[in-house]
Amino acid sequence: KSQFSTDEHPHRRFNPLTGEWVLLSPHRSKRPWQGQTEALDLTTAPSYDSECFLCPGNKRINGEQNPKYDTTFVFQNDFAALNSDGPKAQGEDPLFRFETVEGESRVLCFSPDHSLTLAQLDPEAMQAVIAAWQSQSELLGKKYLWVQVFENKGAAMGCSNPHPHGQIWAHNHLPTLVATKQQRLADYYQQHHSNLLGDYVERELQQEVRIVVSNHDWVALVPYWASWPFETLVLPRFDIRRMTELTAETRESLGEIIGALTVRYDNLFQCAFPYSMGWHGAPFDGQDHPEWCLHAHFYPPLLRSASVKKFMVGYELLAEIQRDITPEQAAARLREQSPIHYKSSHY
Amino acid sequence: KSQFSTDEHPHRRFNPLTGEWVLLSPHRSKRPWQGQTEALDLTTAPSYDSECFLCPGNKRINGEQNPKYDTTFVFQNDFAALNSDGPKAQGEDPLFRFETVEGESRVLCFSPDHSLTLAQLDPEAMQAVIAAWQSQSELLGKKYLWVQVFENKGAAMGCSNPHPHGQIWAHNHLPTLVATKQQRLADYYQQHHSNLLGDYVERELQQEVRIVVSNHDWVALVPYWASWPFETLVLPRFDIRRMTELTAETRESLGEIIGALTVRYDNLFQCAFPYSMGWHGAPFDGQDHPEWCLHAHFYPPLLRSASVKKFMVGYELLAEIQRDITPEQAAARLREQSPIHYKSSHY
Ligand SMILES: O=P(O)(O)O[C@H]1O[C@H](CO)[C@@H](O)[C@H](O)[C@H]1O
Ligand SMILES: O=P(O)(O)O[C@H]1O[C@H](CO)[C@@H](O)[C@H](O)[C@H]1O
Repeated sequence: KSQFSTDEHPHRRFNPLTGEWVLLSPHRSKRPWQGQTEALDLTTAPSYDSECFLCPGNKRINGEQNPKYDTTFVFQNDFAALNSDGPKAQGEDPLFRFETVEGESRVLCFSPDHSLTLAQLDPEAMQAVIAAWQSQSELLGKKYLWVQVFENKGAAMGCSNPHPHGQIWAHNHLPTLVATKQQRLADYYQQHHSNLLGDYVERELQQEVRIVVSNHDWVALVPYWASWPFETLVLPRFDIRRMTELTAETRESLGEIIGALTVRYDNLFQCAFPYSMGWHGAPFDGQDHPEWCLHAHFYPPLLRSASVKKFMVGYELLAEIQRDITPEQAAARLREQSPIHYKSSHY
Repeated sequence: KSQFSTDEHPHRRFNPLTGEWVLLSPHRSKRPWQGQTEALDLTTAPSYDSECFLCPGNKRINGEQNPKYDTTFVFQNDFAALNSDGPKAQGEDPLFRFETVEGESRVLCFSPDHSLTLAQLDPEAMQAVIAAWQSQSELLGKKYLWVQVFENKGAAMGCSNPHPHGQIWAHNHLPTLVATKQQRLADYYQQHHSNLLGDYVERELQQEVRIVVSNHDWVALVPYWASWPFETLVLPRFDIRRMTELTAETRESLGEIIGALTVRYDNLFQCAFPYSMGWHGAPFDGQDHPEWCLHAHFYPPLLRSASVKKFMVGYELLAEIQRDITPEQAAARLREQSPIHYKSSHY
């Protein structure tokens, strides 16, 4: 029998943040694709769209008028998934267990310019977005245990408006995926007397094969256990537990890394690369949480081209995540992209 | 403050099979949808397509020729995610843990007729499909610990060929989601000295509100903790742990229930309702497993119409599954559908 090769032989990798395995079938990437393709939007959006609910000065769905904002803009979601004034209740029957929730959902417009995406913001505009993530986390972290900052980008990710924007949902409970991560980080800390993600980033910097971009403060890499074909993790190279601890300096270096990563994403298939991204840091419970390390996940659905995505269906919904292209191959493809956006005149 | 109402107030429900919570925001179903819609295929497929890799007598991608089959037909997947002749290896580093896998993947054509779906099979053809699920489970269960029978139906679920077919992946490890379920079923059995799903189906039959269809042997219902808008669970009303224990009688009554459920699915939005479905039963490890109960999950992506689906994105990928329509509302809508398929001349 031949020697085991990660590029050739099916194997499973373990995700220490979730406790789940991922099935990797590298030889499968050769299969032809005859299924659904995503509609490609190749029209260029205008900088202002009078029909857009998020453009400055326009009316929103509920009739309120947006201010004529010229940087970022935050408002309460008109169809919030959470609210904070309902009655309280809970049920402890093991087969019909429930509890009411308390929280709020906000929308954050990244820029007044309808035509841009995060990948196209200039450094100053990018700083405004990071500053808004930070100040919203600060504000909502005073009222709620958990503040989930995220962005759904692109129609393929259920985003219904191309105007550059993200969301912030905050509530008084730890959501399922975070509760699991909390437990796993704490277990590792107790067992190894060190920080899981801190240890991990060091090991990755030594191995280099899964790094996409890095600077003095931050690293973007395709994790060893990635689920989505071009999934990445943005990790700090210094000790930071929550978004609220960012300084002028680490905000600036973070802006650089997010710019460098999202430009490479767009360049990979020469399209406005769809993804869901979001931040995880220590809960706002007043505790120290030495087991935590602030980080962002990017989950992009595309697999082979701007129009062919990975479907998380049958086997994935019933058994285990499966992927074809290896994380090492994905990182190499992203790393070799130009640092200049394909739509820029300098490309 | 008003009285808590499941139809009005955001709350979370606990899934005892996964240990995960689902955030329910019923008031949110009023928001308008301006995002991506699914392409509707309203052409009627021919009964035989000379370009189809799965039709009887045609050549497959790898050049092999299908027999002129007239009922079901099983073959090894030409681009299998698993194979059984690779080298063995594993790594125990907690941050870079991996293991090789052993298994095989097969394709099961449900019918020689290219134009049909499970919902349109006559009772005899449906029996052939169930018999094939059972005999494949029997065969592969002798060689492997886990046999995953599933179907991806429709382009929205990553299915690249409309010819009615499912898949069977078998391997010598318990996949992530099954390992979790195994643990939770065993815990409940130990704590309550009874079977979780057995107890659950009895309670649901008393409450009635989440039942879609039932007969003497089987029930299809929208579980209390459903993630997908019209997700259902098919449960037995008798003691059965694995697909291999089906009898002529319970196969027949199962065919009835699958027919009744899939016809209602198709009728709901008058389309070939997309879904991923699959079976879970006790592992093939020679043990008794009194904690297990054979059951099927149906995970359909559609939310509001044949062209608007639920996106499991941002918040769902980073925090917790969120749904708008309640399971009780979903069950009521499915229950009220005609038992006659909308494409049938008797509709
Ligand atoms: O095997 P198929 O039908 O080519 O592929 C489909 O089902 C697989 C198993 O659920 C998924 O991993 C793929 O993403 C999906 O496109
Ligand atoms: O809030 P939006 O953008 O209307 O909706 C989008 O993001 C939500 C949060 O990730 C998801 O629950 C929805 O399925 C998705 O369509």
